[in-house]
Amino acid sequence: MSRLTLSALIFVAAALTASAQPDTRSAVKTWVAVNQKAVVAELVELLSIPNVAADVANVRRNAEHLRGMLEKRGFDAELLETDGNPLVFGELRVPGATRTLLLYSHYDGQPVAPERWSQDDPFTPVLRSGRIDQGGKEIDLASATRFEDDWRIYARSASDDKSPIVAVLAAVDALKASGLAPTSNIRIILDGEEEASSPNLVPAIRKYTDRLRADLMIIFDGPIHSTGRPTVALGARGIAAFDLTVFGPRAGVHSGNYGNFIPNPAQRLAELLASMKDPDGRILVAGFNDGIATFTADDRMILDGVPDDSARMLQTFGVAAPSAAFPRLQEAVQFPTLNVRGLVSAHVGPGARTIIPDRATAAMDIRLVAETPGEAMLEKVRAHIRQQGYYLVDDDPTDEIRAKHPKIAQMAVRETLTNAFRTPPSDPQARAVITALERSFEAPPVVIRTLGGTVPIAQFIEALGFPALLVPTVNFDNNQHEEDENLRLGHFFQAIEIAAAVLRM
Amino acid sequence: MSRLTLSALIFVAAALTASAQPDTRSAVKTWVAVNQKAVVAELVELLSIPNVAADVANVRRNAEHLRGMLEKRGFDAELLETDGNPLVFGELRVPGATRTLLLYSHYDGQPVAPERWSQDDPFTPVLRSGRIDQGGKEIDLASATRFEDDWRIYARSASDDKSPIVAVLAAVDALKASGLAPTSNIRIILDGEEEASSPNLVPAIRKYTDRLRADLMIIFDGPIHSTGRPTVALGARGIAAFDLTVFGPRAGVHSGNYGNFIPNPAQRLAELLASMKDPDGRILVAGFNDGIATFTADDRMILDGVPDDSARMLQTFGVAAPSAAFPRLQEAVQFPTLNVRGLVSAHVGPGARTIIPDRATAAMDIRLVAETPGEAMLEKVRAHIRQQGYYLVDDDPTDEIRAKHPKIAQMAVRETLTNAFRTPPSDPQARAVITALERSFEAPPVVIRTLGGTVPIAQFIEALGFPALLVPTVNFDNNQHEEDENLRLGHFFQAIEIAAAVLRM
Repeated sequence: MSRLTLSALIFVAAALTASAQPDTRSAVKTWVAVNQKAVVAELVELLSIPNVAADVANVRRNAEHLRGMLEKRGFDAELLETDGNPLVFGELRVPGATRTLLLYSHYDGQPVAPERWSQDDPFTPVLRSGRIDQGGKEIDLASATRFEDDWRIYARSASDDKSPIVAVLAAVDALKASGLAPTSNIRIILDGEEEASSPNLVPAIRKYTDRLRADLMIIFDGPIHSTGRPTVALGARGIAAFDLTVFGPRAGVHSGNYGNFIPNPAQRLAELLASMKDPDGRILVAGFNDGIATFTADDRMILDGVPDDSARMLQTFGVAAPSAAFPRLQEAVQFPTLNVRGLVSAHVGPGARTIIPDRATAAMDIRLVAETPGEAMLEKVRAHIRQQGYYLVDDDPTDEIRAKHPKIAQMAVRETLTNAFRTPPSDPQARAVITALERSFEAPPVVIRTLGGTVPIAQFIEALGFPALLVPTVNFDNNQHEEDENLRLGHFFQAIEIAAAVLRM
Repeated sequence: MSRLTLSALIFVAAALTASAQPDTRSAVKTWVAVNQKAVVAELVELLSIPNVAADVANVRRNAEHLRGMLEKRGFDAELLETDGNPLVFGELRVPGATRTLLLYSHYDGQPVAPERWSQDDPFTPVLRSGRIDQGGKEIDLASATRFEDDWRIYARSASDDKSPIVAVLAAVDALKASGLAPTSNIRIILDGEEEASSPNLVPAIRKYTDRLRADLMIIFDGPIHSTGRPTVALGARGIAAFDLTVFGPRAGVHSGNYGNFIPNPAQRLAELLASMKDPDGRILVAGFNDGIATFTADDRMILDGVPDDSARMLQTFGVAAPSAAFPRLQEAVQFPTLNVRGLVSAHVGPGARTIIPDRATAAMDIRLVAETPGEAMLEKVRAHIRQQGYYLVDDDPTDEIRAKHPKIAQMAVRETLTNAFRTPPSDPQARAVITALERSFEAPPVVIRTLGGTVPIAQFIEALGFPALLVPTVNFDNNQHEEDENLRLGHFFQAIEIAAAVLRM
């Protein structure tokens, strides 16, 4: 393939196909306007089944219900049993289609603390005229016949991640009602343990290889860009987490009797952390950015194409200036991080004692990018710590180690490592998705080169071996993972249009 | 006065007076051997009265009991009422004496958690043949008639600080029985709120000025040098404590979505702490050691005269090497510290979340020396923080401050500041105490130029306006402030000899 820029590719693709399916979006729009009540009712019904991953019985009720929803649309549907909650699988074969899409969403939700919610029960959806904290009033769901874009459904999983499932199936209905067929074979896989880190997803690949084969996985999950514009994310950062402990005296010692004489582990931890970054936030661990090439013109175009809302973000967060080394958010997330997510040593506040503490710990996370696999990055941090004169232990140091090594530290890897993934923008399937959205919405979608956060199913993507991308659809202010999770209906209705564009890509 | 070295002065003084009172110690030794049971019984009786400062009724029982003990020895004794627990005051005038000593001890004790003690009741003293953790067995107190040096009394305040009171009064008895009179007028002040920071001690000076006037205050409190040799401490470090907080985003933000972009306050706190010290432990805050002169030959002699047990300490604490900048403990404590006594930011361990925290706090203490008054030192730390580009706030930053200042910190002074004190070794009264101990024990005492820790009554010393020093007597392994507080009887009997030497100085 000749070296065309991405924009040129998109433009050409759009021009070539624009005449063929000019009316998908308007057809879907019309259908949604007429069928609002039924679509919302189907979502409300699904949201009414509790779906915390640990609540096995109710999770299975969700799975059975979802199988029914798939079958209603003509999918061959089944539950794929795992060692945990079942995966819901459905397949819709399209005559003449040469491409197969694997659409992923999850039907489990975050645990709930009902006492913190504004409504009685997070699994009894409530319709409101807007955000609660902006004066949104409750509207009777049963009697509502038309739904405004700014109205919201409040319920656990309204946004994360049941509404994308309902939107995809509504898109199938809308296309069918409009006499339009999907242009790809559709496979749907619905995860029942995503919020519990999907422990059974990778093992399922071996068991259900044939069913999971596809040309592209599209993950319908997460919030759309804050502008509300259709969004495609080509990748996501991974994560490796560890606790870094610097050891001091065997037990805390009196800061008066021994201050200046006995080295202080909290001070040393501070110095160790400071050695890892320069004051601008640039990471000084040797080789941390190895393999990350300078941005190409295409990369640069993608990064520049994302509307920059950093001024508003800084204002929201109450931060006057970003890190000097990473003044632009889209660039910042293309690089690995080394983040202190927590600190502890002895006590602060009423329990504080005048001691030199026995140890100090920083809870750290490294956000990984495609070029920086987690294990190698952890090893680079270990090498850096050793370079600062530390002897690294796996367990609490023995008397012998204490007697021998003046500086002792521990790097305890605490969680499963998740690598990053990134599908290149030149990938034909990724291009096709982008093109389909541009065509349908008559404007290029927001293309995110790398999401800053981590998609827990990155290992699943890695194991599948074919490209993947995310198509997020829900409002960014959805209180995901917290109390009062909600879905803005305008986003939900647009999600149906987005899903239809993907099905017709 | 001509410039004689301290050792020469001590030697001359010892030579001049050695012939005059050759037998104080042997007379006291003999008296103690004969009167062991009565002396121990008096201690046990005093220890049986609960003395936690907040237990006002029992504390007053202690005070009344102590007044009786003083009167028994011919002291003019009274309770000096304060806004809190009473001070017990006693005066013994000695015909012909031209010097007045003010002897200070405290009769209140640390709170107790009886369930953590090996005995049922911390206020029912138990006699043991040695340390519990070294197999010491209980011995029936009532039937014991002679007491070995290695035996111990277990009870709250056995060491801190009731036994020094009993030792001083036994010394008065022993001298009287031996036909020897004190060489100074003796004033005794017994504090009932020391473990509660003596809030009423400084105000008492104004109310009871005449009674508290003296030429030297001698504080009988604290553990003797670990060698067991008679010990004089000429001063003690003070303390100023504060919490240093670096502010980040208004609330924790997702470390994936914003990592690299939003500055991390825990990282910045680490960098700020690291900026305050070099890797050897040398403090880099400008002017921190201002006013501290190079050690004189006398200083050096005092410091070198303290038996160096740092190798054993390092082994006990499990630390391979001291701070490179302060390799000798006695020198280390002559300088102010800047100590991180605690750290906290978000969560570490099971509660850790993948965020950039909203703030990070270090609980700090500065140990002060005589040359470095606390308020000025806090100001120097503030100046250092400002030099690192921080805007200092007193309260949580407002939106306006957040919008304006990229780096925001808070230094919250948390506790009452206590300055250091140090009586110069050339002070005639201090010299007299040192000389008296050398004469009596036929070896120079351990002279501590500055105790590393803080004596809560330093403000009292400052307000009194005459020199003060400490004569500690109890075993260093006394579990002071903890469960199973104990007193080694050999130390107790020696305390009587030490007190007698001071009374005859």
